[in-house]
Amino acid sequence: MEKIKIGILGYGNIGRGVELAVRQHKDTELSVVFTRRDPKSLKILTEGVPVASADDAASYKDKVDVLILCGGSATDLPVQGPVYARLFNTIDSFDTHARIPEYFAAMDAAAKETGHTSIISVGWDPGLFSLNRVYASAVLPEGRDYTFWGKGISQGHSDAIRRVEGVLDAKQYTIPVDAALKAVKSGENPELTTRQKHLRECFVVLKEGADAAKVEAEIKNMPNYFSDYDTTVHFISLEELKRDHSAMPHGGFVIRSGRTGADLQTKHIIEYSLKLDSNPEFTSSVLVAYARAAYRLAKKGDFGAKSVLDIPPALISPLDGETLRAKML
Amino acid sequence: MEKIKIGILGYGNIGRGVELAVRQHKDTELSVVFTRRDPKSLKILTEGVPVASADDAASYKDKVDVLILCGGSATDLPVQGPVYARLFNTIDSFDTHARIPEYFAAMDAAAKETGHTSIISVGWDPGLFSLNRVYASAVLPEGRDYTFWGKGISQGHSDAIRRVEGVLDAKQYTIPVDAALKAVKSGENPELTTRQKHLRECFVVLKEGADAAKVEAEIKNMPNYFSDYDTTVHFISLEELKRDHSAMPHGGFVIRSGRTGADLQTKHIIEYSLKLDSNPEFTSSVLVAYARAAYRLAKKGDFGAKSVLDIPPALISPLDGETLRAKML
Repeated sequence: MEKIKIGILGYGNIGRGVELAVRQHKDTELSVVFTRRDPKSLKILTEGVPVASADDAASYKDKVDVLILCGGSATDLPVQGPVYARLFNTIDSFDTHARIPEYFAAMDAAAKETGHTSIISVGWDPGLFSLNRVYASAVLPEGRDYTFWGKGISQGHSDAIRRVEGVLDAKQYTIPVDAALKAVKSGENPELTTRQKHLRECFVVLKEGADAAKVEAEIKNMPNYFSDYDTTVHFISLEELKRDHSAMPHGGFVIRSGRTGADLQTKHIIEYSLKLDSNPEFTSSVLVAYARAAYRLAKKGDFGAKSVLDIPPALISPLDGETLRAKML
Repeated sequence: MEKIKIGILGYGNIGRGVELAVRQHKDTELSVVFTRRDPKSLKILTEGVPVASADDAASYKDKVDVLILCGGSATDLPVQGPVYARLFNTIDSFDTHARIPEYFAAMDAAAKETGHTSIISVGWDPGLFSLNRVYASAVLPEGRDYTFWGKGISQGHSDAIRRVEGVLDAKQYTIPVDAALKAVKSGENPELTTRQKHLRECFVVLKEGADAAKVEAEIKNMPNYFSDYDTTVHFISLEELKRDHSAMPHGGFVIRSGRTGADLQTKHIIEYSLKLDSNPEFTSSVLVAYARAAYRLAKKGDFGAKSVLDIPPALISPLDGETLRAKML
C-alpha cells in the first residue's frame, strides 16, 4: 500500500498529537516536521523523520502529500495558512468562528491558484460538531439546536485567570449544567441564558502573599469570561495543580430537538456527544482522517478551500466504497 | 424560490410521512402521489396534488424532480427501484443490509444509463447511523463500534408474534439493556452477547379461548426472533393495545469507544443517539432532506447510485455554502 505522506507544521500539543495519530491511521506516514524554532533543538518521537525549518518548506514540496498546519488561530493560521496553501494540500483547525468566511476566502484563492486542496476548520468544534448541527437541522427543519461544551479545560479562560494579579498558575473547567441538559434532552425546547447552560470551575495557584479574596472577586467579576456565569474558585498548591489538572479532557453535546407531523405534535431528539480524555489527541486524529480526504480530492483535481461540510463521509474513511456499503451502511 | 418537485410512490406510513415532511422543508413541494391501488380510492392530505397510477409514472417525467420510493425492502424496492431509476432521480430507504451491494449495482446501472441520480438506503439505519459509524471509525481507527436499537417497535418481531396460533394482535418493543449501555459509555469495551444488548417486551392480545401459557412459551422459544433474548410477554385487551401501543416510537445509539496516545492509554467516547416519537415521520424527513441532495447532484450531472456516505453534509442543507460556513461551522 502506498501511504499518504503527512507533514506537520508546528510541534506543540496538536503537532505531537498528529505524530501519534499518523501511527494509528495505517495508510498515512509522517514525512517531515517543520518548525519555526531551530530544527536542531527539536527532538521528535518518530525515528528517521527529518525536522526542518519552516522557512525551507518549499524544498519539501514533492515529499509531502498533505501538510497539517498545527498553529493557533489567533495569529499563526491567518498568516501561515495562505502561504502554505500555495505549496501543499493542507488541513488546519482554524477555530475563530467569526473569521471563518474571511479565512476560507484567503485559503480558497491560494489553493485554487496553485492547484491545491485545503480543508479548513477541522476538529470537533468547528468540525464534527458542525457536521452534526448541519445534518440535524437539515433533517428536522422545525426545531432548536443546543451546543454544550465540557466538562473540559478551556485554554482561553485558564489564560485569562493567569493574567490576574497574584495568580501563579490556573486551570478552568467549563461544565454543562445538568438541569439544562436534562430539559433539552426531554424535548422541552427551553430558552437558556448563558448562566443556565454552563458552570465555570477554576483551580488557582496563588503567588506568595497574594490576597485570595481579591483574586477570587476579580476572577468572578471578569466581563465576558466569568461575570455571566456561576463561577467557583478553588485555591490549591502548584503541586496539586500539576498532579490533578495536567490532563486535557474535553467534550460536549450537540442536540437538536425538533418536531414533525401535521400539527407538529411529534417530538424527536437527535443527540451527538463526545467524551474525550485528551482534547489535542482527539483533534489530531480528526485532522489526519481529513488529510485522507484532502489527498483524494487533490488527486481528482478538486482544488480550493473546503470545510468538513463539503466532504462526503466516505472520503475520510480508509475503506473503499464497496467495502463501506457492504460493512458500514 | 423555485421549489424541488417531489413525487411519492406508495402511500403507506412512509408515503404519508413524506407528504408531511415536504410541508416542513420549505424548498420542496409535492407534485404527485403514485399508487398501485385505484387512484380514485386514495384520498391524500394535500389539496390540488394529483394521485396517479404507478403505471402512468412515465407521463410525469417532467413534473417530478425527485421521486421518493416508499415501498418495502423485501419485495417492492428490488423490483421497483431499477424501473423508476430509469425515469426519475430517486430516494429510497432500502434496508436489507445483506442485499445492499446487489441493490446498489442495479440502481447504479439504471440511473447511469438514463442520466439520473439515485440515493439508496436513506433513513436512520441504514442512514444517519451509518454516517456515524463511518465518521467515528475513521476518526478513531483503534476502537470498537456498538449499535443499540430502541426503545422502539420492531415491525418484524410484531409480525412474528401475530403469526403465533391464538394471537389476535401484538406489538413488540426492542429495548437496549441499561447495564450494557452504561458499560459501553464508560469506555470498558465489553464483549456483549445478543442477550446482553437488548431486551424484547411483547404486548399480546389473545383470541378468545387461546391458551396464554402456550402462546407465551411459543413466543419466548421462537428461534432468531426471541430465543436468544430475555423476553417479557404481557397479555392485554385489544382496547389497551390500541390505546397504549399505536404510536411508532423508535431510536437507538451508535457508540464508538476508541483509544489514542503512544500506548493507547487515552480513552474517547463518540456517541450518537436518536429518540424518535414516530419512526416513519422521522425517516420521511431524512428522505426529503436527501431528495435535496439528489436534485443538486443531478443538476450537476453527477449521475448513478449513491449512498448517504457519498453525500457531503452541505448538500442536504437548504442553506448555501457561504451561509453554512458563517452560521453553522
